Amino acid sequence: MRTYARVFGTLLIVLGVTAAAGMAVSAESLQDVMKRRELTQQDLLAAAKTYVPSGKRDEFLGFSSGGQSGQVIVYGIPSMRIVKYIGVFTPEPWQGYGFDESSKVVLDGGKVDGKTITWGDSHHPAISETNGQYDGQFLFINDKGNSRMAVIDLRDFETKQIVANPIFKSEHGGAFVTPNTDYVIETAQYPTPLENKKFYPLEQFNDKYRGGVTYWKFDRTAGRIQPQNSFTVELPPYSQDLSDAGKGPSDGWSFTNSFCTERYVGGIEKGRPPYEAGCSAKDTDYLHVINWRKAAELVAQGKARKINGHNVIPLETAVKEGILFLIPEPKSPHGVDVTPDGKLIIIAGKLDTHVSVFSFDKIQAAIRARKFESRDAYGIPVIAMSDVMQLQVQLGLGPLHTQYDSKPCIAYTSLYVDSQVAKWNYCDGKVLDKISVQYNIGHLMTMEGDSADPKGHYLVALNKLAIDRFTPVGPLHPQNHQLIDISGDKMELLYDMPLPLGEPHYAVAIAASKLKPAIRYKVGTDSRTDKPHPGAVKAGEEHTVRKGARVEVFGTLIRSHITPETIEVEVGDEVVINLTSLERAEDETHGFAVSTYNIQASIEPGKTVQVKFKADKEGVYPYYCTEFCSALHLEMQGYLLVKPKGYKAVKAVAEVAVYTKVDYDKELKKIADTQAVIDSVVGYITSVNYKDFPDVVAMVDDAFDQAGKIPAAKAKHDEAAKRGDFQNATLWAEQVWQYQVKTADLGLRAKTYLEQNGAKKVSK
Amino acid sequence: MRTYARVFGTLLIVLGVTAAAGMAVSAESLQDVMKRRELTQQDLLAAAKTYVPSGKRDEFLGFSSGGQSGQVIVYGIPSMRIVKYIGVFTPEPWQGYGFDESSKVVLDGGKVDGKTITWGDSHHPAISETNGQYDGQFLFINDKGNSRMAVIDLRDFETKQIVANPIFKSEHGGAFVTPNTDYVIETAQYPTPLENKKFYPLEQFNDKYRGGVTYWKFDRTAGRIQPQNSFTVELPPYSQDLSDAGKGPSDGWSFTNSFCTERYVGGIEKGRPPYEAGCSAKDTDYLHVINWRKAAELVAQGKARKINGHNVIPLETAVKEGILFLIPEPKSPHGVDVTPDGKLIIIAGKLDTHVSVFSFDKIQAAIRARKFESRDAYGIPVIAMSDVMQLQVQLGLGPLHTQYDSKPCIAYTSLYVDSQVAKWNYCDGKVLDKISVQYNIGHLMTMEGDSADPKGHYLVALNKLAIDRFTPVGPLHPQNHQLIDISGDKMELLYDMPLPLGEPHYAVAIAASKLKPAIRYKVGTDSRTDKPHPGAVKAGEEHTVRKGARVEVFGTLIRSHITPETIEVEVGDEVVINLTSLERAEDETHGFAVSTYNIQASIEPGKTVQVKFKADKEGVYPYYCTEFCSALHLEMQGYLLVKPKGYKAVKAVAEVAVYTKVDYDKELKKIADTQAVIDSVVGYITSVNYKDFPDVVAMVDDAFDQAGKIPAAKAKHDEAAKRGDFQNATLWAEQVWQYQVKTADLGLRAKTYLEQNGAKKVSK
Repeated sequence: MRTYARVFGTLLIVLGVTAAAGMAVSAESLQDVMKRRELTQQDLLAAAKTYVPSGKRDEFLGFSSGGQSGQVIVYGIPSMRIVKYIGVFTPEPWQGYGFDESSKVVLDGGKVDGKTITWGDSHHPAISETNGQYDGQFLFINDKGNSRMAVIDLRDFETKQIVANPIFKSEHGGAFVTPNTDYVIETAQYPTPLENKKFYPLEQFNDKYRGGVTYWKFDRTAGRIQPQNSFTVELPPYSQDLSDAGKGPSDGWSFTNSFCTERYVGGIEKGRPPYEAGCSAKDTDYLHVINWRKAAELVAQGKARKINGHNVIPLETAVKEGILFLIPEPKSPHGVDVTPDGKLIIIAGKLDTHVSVFSFDKIQAAIRARKFESRDAYGIPVIAMSDVMQLQVQLGLGPLHTQYDSKPCIAYTSLYVDSQVAKWNYCDGKVLDKISVQYNIGHLMTMEGDSADPKGHYLVALNKLAIDRFTPVGPLHPQNHQLIDISGDKMELLYDMPLPLGEPHYAVAIAASKLKPAIRYKVGTDSRTDKPHPGAVKAGEEHTVRKGARVEVFGTLIRSHITPETIEVEVGDEVVINLTSLERAEDETHGFAVSTYNIQASIEPGKTVQVKFKADKEGVYPYYCTEFCSALHLEMQGYLLVKPKGYKAVKAVAEVAVYTKVDYDKELKKIADTQAVIDSVVGYITSVNYKDFPDVVAMVDDAFDQAGKIPAAKAKHDEAAKRGDFQNATLWAEQVWQYQVKTADLGLRAKTYLEQNGAKKVSK
Repeated sequence: MRTYARVFGTLLIVLGVTAAAGMAVSAESLQDVMKRRELTQQDLLAAAKTYVPSGKRDEFLGFSSGGQSGQVIVYGIPSMRIVKYIGVFTPEPWQGYGFDESSKVVLDGGKVDGKTITWGDSHHPAISETNGQYDGQFLFINDKGNSRMAVIDLRDFETKQIVANPIFKSEHGGAFVTPNTDYVIETAQYPTPLENKKFYPLEQFNDKYRGGVTYWKFDRTAGRIQPQNSFTVELPPYSQDLSDAGKGPSDGWSFTNSFCTERYVGGIEKGRPPYEAGCSAKDTDYLHVINWRKAAELVAQGKARKINGHNVIPLETAVKEGILFLIPEPKSPHGVDVTPDGKLIIIAGKLDTHVSVFSFDKIQAAIRARKFESRDAYGIPVIAMSDVMQLQVQLGLGPLHTQYDSKPCIAYTSLYVDSQVAKWNYCDGKVLDKISVQYNIGHLMTMEGDSADPKGHYLVALNKLAIDRFTPVGPLHPQNHQLIDISGDKMELLYDMPLPLGEPHYAVAIAASKLKPAIRYKVGTDSRTDKPHPGAVKAGEEHTVRKGARVEVFGTLIRSHITPETIEVEVGDEVVINLTSLERAEDETHGFAVSTYNIQASIEPGKTVQVKFKADKEGVYPYYCTEFCSALHLEMQGYLLVKPKGYKAVKAVAEVAVYTKVDYDKELKKIADTQAVIDSVVGYITSVNYKDFPDVVAMVDDAFDQAGKIPAAKAKHDEAAKRGDFQNATLWAEQVWQYQVKTADLGLRAKTYLEQNGAKKVSK
């Protein structure tokens, strides 16, 4: 048996073998593989269009709602590989979300009427926009089930805020942003009384139940919604559905469609047809057209009233002030989608076979001329459909949603019942192509396809059923997102992607190049507030403060130790543990778990978190790092000792010294051998143009960080050896070697990277 | 504007267009695509080896631990597409896991010392075995953080049981199964006192802290662990680590390695080196060799003592009875992996550059001869390493785990520090190949590679760091599982797969053909107990029972209605809602959410669930289906009315009849037109050999289910029309049409399937 140091010498030879293996030619030819796997030429082409080789990146990043999982799903396009589930409405322990104190505050922001909610029905993500174009700064997503809105910061992909709608009990038509992200739109779905804790019977549905559209004011600098500057336009008890904000010429307006304008309230218990029949009996429902800019002015003028502390523009005020209009729209529509130029509004009538294209100019003309065909039961002026209709195109069964191409006038509409996507021209009304999808498509998404500047290339069909598409995994199936190539005249199916957790509704995709997420935090940052964390400490300043029955730890984490390694408290103490990551290397995250006390945190480089619990059970509870962070990861541990009240320490048992001068000398030899290897790796790295590779520069910095800890440990083993304490001398020498191993690990990684990425020799 | 019925006639033409589009040749050639996307021939070959076209299936299914997410991740191989996250230790709302009452009982089984835990650090999955081969029936996985074991039934991919280890406070070396799944092995990690709520200071570590191996008895018929028939062998306070069960000649024995046999307990607070140095100072640790079959006999003979109500074989008994031995093993080992034939045990010394191959025959010979080199501090006989060593092979830096190939003598070992996989021969000790992985590999997995019958083909490297591999998503990176082709002499990297949630540790893969999961439950099943649910009801027998302040609903779900559509209770009532899915179509799941009350359930075909809450807030709370289940999904809704105590109903407002004979006649026309289309689709389906396609047969059955509801609704509209009630006549006629739309939806899906899968004309 030989240890590390003795083989470091053979290292370069080993690396040489590997490089050769990487270039070996496969025994099986492409033709062999295609035959064996029964692939067609078309399959191979699709594979070539979607495969992303190791180390290369996807072109676009998609953000999909996670449906009932309450999360947001992030995936690469065209590879369709999921790169992250972001915890949003549901606690998620890998991210420590809902486990550390700051993230609990975010989740608590989403309490509804004081009630803790541990899930969400996340539906429609929206990326922040500047001048109608995606700017990649923030992501918003709504919770249909409990009427909430979340803000995710795309610098770190963390949820920063959840706000609960103060007057709705369910919603659907959010999140949609105005072209400069001044407001985030959220509309009610199933009407309810607006006052909290107010009961009215269903017999008073028409009079006492209401819908509405909430405009959440977004403060881009703070990166937070401002509830106090937000407002709602009260609407009739129609089931408001999807929405969209105007842009360009229609900026300042928003559009919300609806179903069940029949105001049917169910009849199974009385032997009458259920909602599905009662809510779909009429041939038309209403598109709500709202001048939100003027609405905001009305609020500023004090014309809103407060309901549950929230600004509400009453229906009668909205009518009187001329900010609210209705237009009949075909049967139980689903999507309302403003064209990239902001001139047209496309409505898909779910139980109609058409898409209807309304002209914003015509809507404005009717409003200016005060040309209304009628008023609804609540006095809202109704503009005739025929007065605003630009075009109506028959597409098929169950049209739901429309997205746009980079090519002018080209739109794609999902057909739920037909299980198809239709490509059509909204300028001349021609249907250009159809493609079958598997199965029952809901939303669809093109790249930046709901912005003022769609990017074309790809379309993703968000299918509601997968049925036979994937290897069976029991009664509950994954969903199926299908990637479709839209760069040519004909749409081509490229890829079936299972969604393994949650049923997504809408998704949005942005060019990956627009995102510039951070890889670390400034040391001591509370990532949920973006501010310095009061519990942060610097290396060497770790300490514990006891105040009465509260024990507060100010600790740190770095490969491979948690400081402190022992936390001693008494039964009944409140334990508060603050931990700061001293790491700065990319992807060098530590976890922190305490047995039994339901504690799990994720601490990325630079982050500080706080966890808190009552130590109500006497005993010994290990804590440890839950991310495999280095070779000595399992040894990154400690003990929480919960002592009985008033416990008197037993006389300390003197440690039996087990290491001698022989052990110490062995350590010194190992250190010297290892240093030689490190020197040789450093020699290689500095012999090439490593400074041209930012990832390598980061690794080298990190290696120096680790190497920088060596002198202090060396001083300790020298000092212990000098006084003949070979027990501690050996252990400190071992610690020096641990730092060396981490230095070498990084160095080797950097060396491999340089070799694989064509580093060139430089003259020194 | 035309409605559905009017375009049904053009439907076949539309479908014709689609079929043509599917066959269109791409404008961009393969060469163009490779050039544009900068793909090499090697990339293309890898793409061809991993791409699974729409509708085709993966060969293997991998089950990966979800790390700190507390879940299990299921993915297809070679496509590396994740098909499911199974809720195990963490509540997960999409699956209703931890939200409905039965799944809460499963999670409550995992309470530790009475404390609710809402996460787990899932580490090592194990598939149940018969004669050492994967049988695909059950999956087990452990929770390192809180010492728990979970049982997942692979018939429905649901977690059925969680048991908490009664004496450990952390664990690591589980789950590993004995060759016929008689026992599931779980070993302690960080030593603690075994008695619950017992505190001893670290100064008494050697005397009062203990490790151990628990053998959980599994009852395969019941599909549950039997805690009362399970037992633990007490071990010294070494940090026990990974384990493996013997097989073939070594069946009846198990092997557990360890680190920190130095029994160092940390020194940062006292200015001494941290655990990482103290626990890795010695050149060897101990492999524990245990005769579990004899241990089980000792328990049966009453030789165990009870600690916290659990059977424990004390250390001294284990020594006296000759069931426990130690063998020194190289420095801080990680994996211990028994060869497929059960004859050898391969140990990877994490801080040693070798793998060590121990011979089970030699171990037995030493035991029989009572040839021990010493005893440890606890009196356990220590067999000399040299007496059992078959072979030692130098592989590189940081060897961690070993898996096996279908080819004889071939093993693969992960090298953490080198970021490589080594392929080598454990019979002759030759190193055959190495491949670099990105980066810092932990476990690795070959197909059924820890069973008695490995399948070869693929290897997956479970890398701990991804660093630069994927599109950046903030400081917290995904993990990277890399698929490697091992069918040839040289290993070839095929695919980088990001893991978007949780840091997996171990994974196991089984031939997909061995799994036969169900697609539905017998109607009225409680999926967590596998028994009939007491809350189940049949269609038409839905009812509500009030007993004092408890209101219990017995309802049903079917596209697109929830019965009941109104639930009326008083403030303070306990509300219990039982819901049975009447669906039988594959993938036709319903969700059930109630606003504000934190209620979300998943109800797959045939399942019955119960949700429960206290209606402590007056008001109106919508409930709805959270899975997009049909075109009228949004209308699948109802209202929970929470009335003030003693509320007296207001006089019901008579509904204003809004539909007339004209509307009714329009409905009748629509129904007739739609029926013609259904007849034509049925005509097509029955004209081909649809009975040869089980998926289509299921769709046709389901279509007949929907169509079967039509006569009852038709009788109602006929009857209402007869008495001149055109309001209800129109609504019931609309309901008939809704059933028709669902019938047509299924018929069209079946037709498309048949066309795409080469159905052939049959003579009638």
